[in-house]
Amino acid sequence: MSNEKSWQARISQATDQLAQGFVESISYDRRLYRQDIAGSIAHATMLAQVGLISVNERDQIIEGLKSIERDIGAGNFTFDQSLEDIHMVVEAALIERIGEPGRRLHTARSRNDQVALDLSLWIKSEAIEIGRKLHDLCRALVEMAQRSGDIVMPSYTHLQRAQPILAGAECLAWCTMFSRDADRCDRVAAGNGFDDIPLGSGAIAGSSLPIDSTISAELLGYQSSPTSSIEQTASRDQALEFLFALSMAAMHLSRWAEQWVIYSSTEFSFIKTADRYTTGSSMMPQKRNPDMLELIRGRCGTVYGDLVALLTICKGLPIGYNRDLQEDKRVLFRAFDTVTSSVTMAAAIVGATDFVAANIEPTLDRGFLDATSLAEYLVTKGIAFRTAHRIVGSLVARCEREGKKSLSELTINDFTQAVAGAGADASKVGADVFESLGARNVVRRYRSAGAAGGEPYSRRLAEWKQRLGL
Amino acid sequence: MSNEKSWQARISQATDQLAQGFVESISYDRRLYRQDIAGSIAHATMLAQVGLISVNERDQIIEGLKSIERDIGAGNFTFDQSLEDIHMVVEAALIERIGEPGRRLHTARSRNDQVALDLSLWIKSEAIEIGRKLHDLCRALVEMAQRSGDIVMPSYTHLQRAQPILAGAECLAWCTMFSRDADRCDRVAAGNGFDDIPLGSGAIAGSSLPIDSTISAELLGYQSSPTSSIEQTASRDQALEFLFALSMAAMHLSRWAEQWVIYSSTEFSFIKTADRYTTGSSMMPQKRNPDMLELIRGRCGTVYGDLVALLTICKGLPIGYNRDLQEDKRVLFRAFDTVTSSVTMAAAIVGATDFVAANIEPTLDRGFLDATSLAEYLVTKGIAFRTAHRIVGSLVARCEREGKKSLSELTINDFTQAVAGAGADASKVGADVFESLGARNVVRRYRSAGAAGGEPYSRRLAEWKQRLGL
Amino acid sequence: MSNEKSWQARISQATDQLAQGFVESISYDRRLYRQDIAGSIAHATMLAQVGLISVNERDQIIEGLKSIERDIGAGNFTFDQSLEDIHMVVEAALIERIGEPGRRLHTARSRNDQVALDLSLWIKSEAIEIGRKLHDLCRALVEMAQRSGDIVMPSYTHLQRAQPILAGAECLAWCTMFSRDADRCDRVAAGNGFDDIPLGSGAIAGSSLPIDSTISAELLGYQSSPTSSIEQTASRDQALEFLFALSMAAMHLSRWAEQWVIYSSTEFSFIKTADRYTTGSSMMPQKRNPDMLELIRGRCGTVYGDLVALLTICKGLPIGYNRDLQEDKRVLFRAFDTVTSSVTMAAAIVGATDFVAANIEPTLDRGFLDATSLAEYLVTKGIAFRTAHRIVGSLVARCEREGKKSLSELTINDFTQAVAGAGADASKVGADVFESLGARNVVRRYRSAGAAGGEPYSRRLAEWKQRLGL
Amino acid sequence: MSNEKSWQARISQATDQLAQGFVESISYDRRLYRQDIAGSIAHATMLAQVGLISVNERDQIIEGLKSIERDIGAGNFTFDQSLEDIHMVVEAALIERIGEPGRRLHTARSRNDQVALDLSLWIKSEAIEIGRKLHDLCRALVEMAQRSGDIVMPSYTHLQRAQPILAGAECLAWCTMFSRDADRCDRVAAGNGFDDIPLGSGAIAGSSLPIDSTISAELLGYQSSPTSSIEQTASRDQALEFLFALSMAAMHLSRWAEQWVIYSSTEFSFIKTADRYTTGSSMMPQKRNPDMLELIRGRCGTVYGDLVALLTICKGLPIGYNRDLQEDKRVLFRAFDTVTSSVTMAAAIVGATDFVAANIEPTLDRGFLDATSLAEYLVTKGIAFRTAHRIVGSLVARCEREGKKSLSELTINDFTQAVAGAGADASKVGADVFESLGARNVVRRYRSAGAAGGEPYSRRLAEWKQRLGL
Repeated sequence: MSNEKSWQARISQATDQLAQGFVESISYDRRLYRQDIAGSIAHATMLAQVGLISVNERDQIIEGLKSIERDIGAGNFTFDQSLEDIHMVVEAALIERIGEPGRRLHTARSRNDQVALDLSLWIKSEAIEIGRKLHDLCRALVEMAQRSGDIVMPSYTHLQRAQPILAGAECLAWCTMFSRDADRCDRVAAGNGFDDIPLGSGAIAGSSLPIDSTISAELLGYQSSPTSSIEQTASRDQALEFLFALSMAAMHLSRWAEQWVIYSSTEFSFIKTADRYTTGSSMMPQKRNPDMLELIRGRCGTVYGDLVALLTICKGLPIGYNRDLQEDKRVLFRAFDTVTSSVTMAAAIVGATDFVAANIEPTLDRGFLDATSLAEYLVTKGIAFRTAHRIVGSLVARCEREGKKSLSELTINDFTQAVAGAGADASKVGADVFESLGARNVVRRYRSAGAAGGEPYSRRLAEWKQRLGL
Repeated sequence: MSNEKSWQARISQATDQLAQGFVESISYDRRLYRQDIAGSIAHATMLAQVGLISVNERDQIIEGLKSIERDIGAGNFTFDQSLEDIHMVVEAALIERIGEPGRRLHTARSRNDQVALDLSLWIKSEAIEIGRKLHDLCRALVEMAQRSGDIVMPSYTHLQRAQPILAGAECLAWCTMFSRDADRCDRVAAGNGFDDIPLGSGAIAGSSLPIDSTISAELLGYQSSPTSSIEQTASRDQALEFLFALSMAAMHLSRWAEQWVIYSSTEFSFIKTADRYTTGSSMMPQKRNPDMLELIRGRCGTVYGDLVALLTICKGLPIGYNRDLQEDKRVLFRAFDTVTSSVTMAAAIVGATDFVAANIEPTLDRGFLDATSLAEYLVTKGIAFRTAHRIVGSLVARCEREGKKSLSELTINDFTQAVAGAGADASKVGADVFESLGARNVVRRYRSAGAAGGEPYSRRLAEWKQRLGL
Repeated sequence: MSNEKSWQARISQATDQLAQGFVESISYDRRLYRQDIAGSIAHATMLAQVGLISVNERDQIIEGLKSIERDIGAGNFTFDQSLEDIHMVVEAALIERIGEPGRRLHTARSRNDQVALDLSLWIKSEAIEIGRKLHDLCRALVEMAQRSGDIVMPSYTHLQRAQPILAGAECLAWCTMFSRDADRCDRVAAGNGFDDIPLGSGAIAGSSLPIDSTISAELLGYQSSPTSSIEQTASRDQALEFLFALSMAAMHLSRWAEQWVIYSSTEFSFIKTADRYTTGSSMMPQKRNPDMLELIRGRCGTVYGDLVALLTICKGLPIGYNRDLQEDKRVLFRAFDTVTSSVTMAAAIVGATDFVAANIEPTLDRGFLDATSLAEYLVTKGIAFRTAHRIVGSLVARCEREGKKSLSELTINDFTQAVAGAGADASKVGADVFESLGARNVVRRYRSAGAAGGEPYSRRLAEWKQRLGL
Repeated sequence: MSNEKSWQARISQATDQLAQGFVESISYDRRLYRQDIAGSIAHATMLAQVGLISVNERDQIIEGLKSIERDIGAGNFTFDQSLEDIHMVVEAALIERIGEPGRRLHTARSRNDQVALDLSLWIKSEAIEIGRKLHDLCRALVEMAQRSGDIVMPSYTHLQRAQPILAGAECLAWCTMFSRDADRCDRVAAGNGFDDIPLGSGAIAGSSLPIDSTISAELLGYQSSPTSSIEQTASRDQALEFLFALSMAAMHLSRWAEQWVIYSSTEFSFIKTADRYTTGSSMMPQKRNPDMLELIRGRCGTVYGDLVALLTICKGLPIGYNRDLQEDKRVLFRAFDTVTSSVTMAAAIVGATDFVAANIEPTLDRGFLDATSLAEYLVTKGIAFRTAHRIVGSLVARCEREGKKSLSELTINDFTQAVAGAGADASKVGADVFESLGARNVVRRYRSAGAAGGEPYSRRLAEWKQRLGL
């Protein structure tokens, strides 16, 4: 019995405060105050235009809302948790400030369409903002390509040395990815093809009052009035699309960070980052750890988690607004903050990092990076690619057997013998073979569009500079 | 010792076959044979045009490839697992059939850009295909709206009765979602703003041979040659975008299925589906279970899992092709198959289902569905919405106290007293209040764009019919 | 050019503060201060015991740490973000307070084993704590079973009416799940079979100093010293196990909430929750929404997201500590807080909810809930189950055709005819058939262990009361 | 109009076959035939014991089931997709073979408890099986430690060189993880504390027939009869626990594979794997790619996806069996197959791999691996650790300035000066400092439990050998 009391006492003690804390969202949705007020101003403007409130009431409402916005912006505003959310807080403050007209603001509106609008407005502006930051990161990468991108270095597939590239080409590869992420965000901001305003949908079924959503749509930058009031109040498609765009950016950031963590190892030492972006160890005095890169890499996991969270939440719901959807903001805000800080950090790190020729070049010819180039040389001499591939394979094997580090240590005789031995015509193989060997030669010879050296690289670099205004 | 032997023996026995089975993808990527052959034909055409192979060689290659395609299509082709993947299988068959020219096909090409191309071609065609099926589902929903959509029924928020709607408006809400899913797929097919062909990127760095990717791009329907050979061979952005689009469709399907499972319960009984889409029980002879809906709902979970799988795979990788990426096809194929069959099933179920007026109407006025309408009526009489909201709240409470099921059981006197009691002007409140009461009246009066009844609904229904060619 | 300046200026302005904010964890890991101090006290005790510090130094250290703990507990402590984390903050404060001996505390210790220890200690105590709260929820469910569990109600499979049950049996089903969740948490606290202390592992390789981890292990409640210093500092298995246990609890909470959202609908109305746990609508005055249940259901999604986050983070890492792991605390803390508040809320709601006989009973015999019971009756008369199943199926169909709501409306003649018609022996079928019909009869007759009525239910209820001390 | 026809025609053509294919699970659950038959034999045995069937019927049933098992095992059995699942297929075959007694087998049983039992039996045996394979992998790692584990090599935190270790210590770290994974699987097999048999729960509510689940429980190796028939038929906790255990193993496999991919790079070259576990390139003739490792790493993503899938599926459900749960098998089977083949592959690779002293040793003293050891030496001379840490930091910085690669290039004078310069007592610092320098010296001196060298390592190695029977 005493046992029973104890647990019930424990619960009831906690309950009242818990209940309030459990349902409130004001602790995080206050962040939407600008959007909430902008939406209300547009709504009031529309209500006046269709005659549901007077012009005078409209003006009082707008003035009241603006004063609230100023006070919140200046930090002179107390948020009352018992009012649950930013929408009720702002409306309550408005009524307190202007009285009766404030009680007319919520005409033909529900929190369901209001919260959908606020979130959509926030997405529209922040998706643009993060796109801008992603372009900053692109600029940092292009500038890095300009600074130290002319170094010839190995590229990797399977983390095995593959072909030689200009270091700058790797910068441009990352730039390509982040630029696509920026564009993806821009498309989310533009509505991804669906740009009807949620406001005007009411709780679920719309309204019997003669509102005109085309007015609010125009005022707030939407292309049309709601297509379906039921769908608009029940869906979080735009939030999911933004979370997906953020996840893609986080994924690319993580891949970049992973690459640079590897490049920062003693064994690679391909890049050097300013000390201010590395940290020490509490036990090992000699360490310079790429913590920022690791955090960028790790935080991608939390962004994925946020995407999974909202996908999971939405899956389980019947149609119409369900309170589960309140969690949308929590996960979206934190995913946005995570990616925003990671992108900014990444741009700063890129700006403080260079490729280190002294570490890259000495080992450049390890790994037979010119093997593909040699095969392509043989193709230009009329040998079928598959045959050429086999010939080069046998030459590489021979080098390894004989302790030769590089194909260019072979003689012209070695080449013609190998070709002939494969039953191919060796007559055209000559001393020009050596122009295809050695990483530096190879990189100069790339000709295909988008290639990691030669003229295609120069052209692409110029294009990026122009596109990014550098 | 004997113990040691046994586990090693166990492993080595299994290993050789395991190793082959472990790396092969032919068991599932054979599905790409059409794309692989189309890509190779375009590649050979380009190689001939730039002079890397002869016109005669090109013709032999194309003829050989077409014969392989015919044989695979007809089931007259044996796939050799030891050749690992569809690319090697097709090339080996080509060399076997046409000899030397076949050995030239892989010139200036790597499996890395080849597999990226094949997957992209597959996505482009299948994204269109699933978009088409989603539109079929939209048609089924619009037709259902035409058949039984004029029934007035409750809508739900928080699964609580909210406002009355036309049943058809819910059909249009689902239609809106699925139509957006279809458009999302179409955008994936169009490249979502990035439509450069992967082919021509080689293994990672491009090629020193004088290939012209603009030719292959045009032949295969891409807008441009590769932007970055490094990025093109390392990225699976398009696959992720398709998986996300599939996840969104799966989520909407799950929500719809959840709604209809609830509507199929004895307690709701709002819809009736043809028996062929319900199943019985092995123990309970009376059951008619909505298994198909439940499977649609459940399979959304597996599509999410597939999205998480590829996101996770991509996150952990440095740049350049890594073999982890081979798994992309496995998860993408099965997510596509799952959503495809679910969409088709859903369209069939919708086509065999109607709303049941006999079950919906008797309880229609439970839940005070007209409360909002009454508040809006009061607004038209000059009462501030917040005041009106409070007045109606008190009237609902009174009905509940007095055992009245519906607001329309109140008298005109009750209304004016309540208004006056709230300190508002009751002078304009008259007998016309009853025109705002009762679900049927309410539904007729909706005026806002996208609303779930009245003229806005009729207009939207007409628009959908036109848009979907019905 | 001006463009370039602008973005770089923007970044560098933000960078310094960003960098500090980017790597700090003190804003959330301060929560571990008790664990950090307990770990340090144990460490100092061990260091003194093996002679690495003096007894006097140990005493000063312990006294200093306790004063810090008191100050933090009392809110008289300023956390300096520039010191990054709770470990550095506490050590710096210690050195400031006691000088030189404070500089000896970190002997043979690294932040890597220190943070692993702190997190493990936190998990050990909080997993117990949440287990306790889950048992509170079990108590609330058992008490609900006692209050209104004797009502006979339909059970559902496929959300279709299946067999009759005692309402209390559903309470016990939930109780079973949550009790298993509690046990799962207890096992996590006990180390799930692996209970070696991380402390003593150093940065990764251990230490050359003569420390004795068995002492610290005993002081802190671990079973053994570290098995592998490399593994201990690199792994987050225990955190993942806790996240999984939290996810399971969240999943069961979500299912329960979903069930009760459905039971709260107008159509079901099976339960009634005290008004303080429902909320109103900003637009619809009549609504009583089960918001708390919906939030519990929705927040499960965020817990899943947290599990995915840490799984993703851990997957991508090579061995040894990587800074990515810092995110472990962020996701674990919030998942714990989410489940903790949901469990507490759930217990409060259960305590304020009862089944409503007046709504359940009138429709109890809809859906032929006694069909299985009838089939089992026939089995007792010697008829093969599959045959009985078919006979009952035909009788149900007949009732539906003839508009009979219940099998008990059939006559004894109807039963014997149907049996005979199926080619079975009807001689033993008699008037006792009616004792197997009707939901109330059926529920009384359950005999199998764990069944949802009859003696098995009473026994189980008694067992739970005893087990939970009620 | 023609448009309309076309889509409807398209759908109805596809529907019938689709519907059957949509709900069937026989294509994958046939894998459970042994479990299904074992469960049915136990069920029949129990039914006979309590008198619900005769001994003669029981014998016919058992004989029939065994003949079916033999035929399926021998490949002489045709699975009829129209029978949906393995349970119906086996029962139908039984009735066909033995007639009437076969119609009695399903007495007091539902597919709901039957499928729960079959899956649980499968998990119990396969969890043991995968635990066994994980122990094989542990053996391979311990044997590798014996073969080439005495090489001294750098360990890494943040992928930066940290402290020197014996290579074998890293093998033991992986062994520790996989051994824990094996134990986790064993606990799942043992029921993780909940080992009540699902059989006897019926469809949801149990049975009115006098069955005795303790008999079936004992026959099938469970500890007790069902606790709650409702919970047992609705839950997939055990499947989720197995999926989580598989995810943990997959995560550890991925980390190990990532580590070895890095070790396989040209830059590290720390390990050499037999050629049969590397593959070549279609374009680059010189490549030896660690494809198997990459596939192991990547496939972890798909196992995570499977866990997310089932978590998502379960979250959305009300209590009682819902058809969504059918997907449990699909995801569980494939996660199991993925991890099984990865573990087997991993053991084979480990058995064919050695550390390469010739590549590790030449660069061993890069990175000041002995810095921590030096700090610990100073601690033994009475210097506070934090002071020692600072002194060593300054010495490392000095070496870097002066181009010294190693702390052992400093003189005894350098050491005493640095100590004195930090205000510490240098009197005890002597020539013995050099015994703490150099990676080989350091590794010998480790003393803490679980450390990566010295006596602690030898002891742990011996323990593992004994534990694993090597």
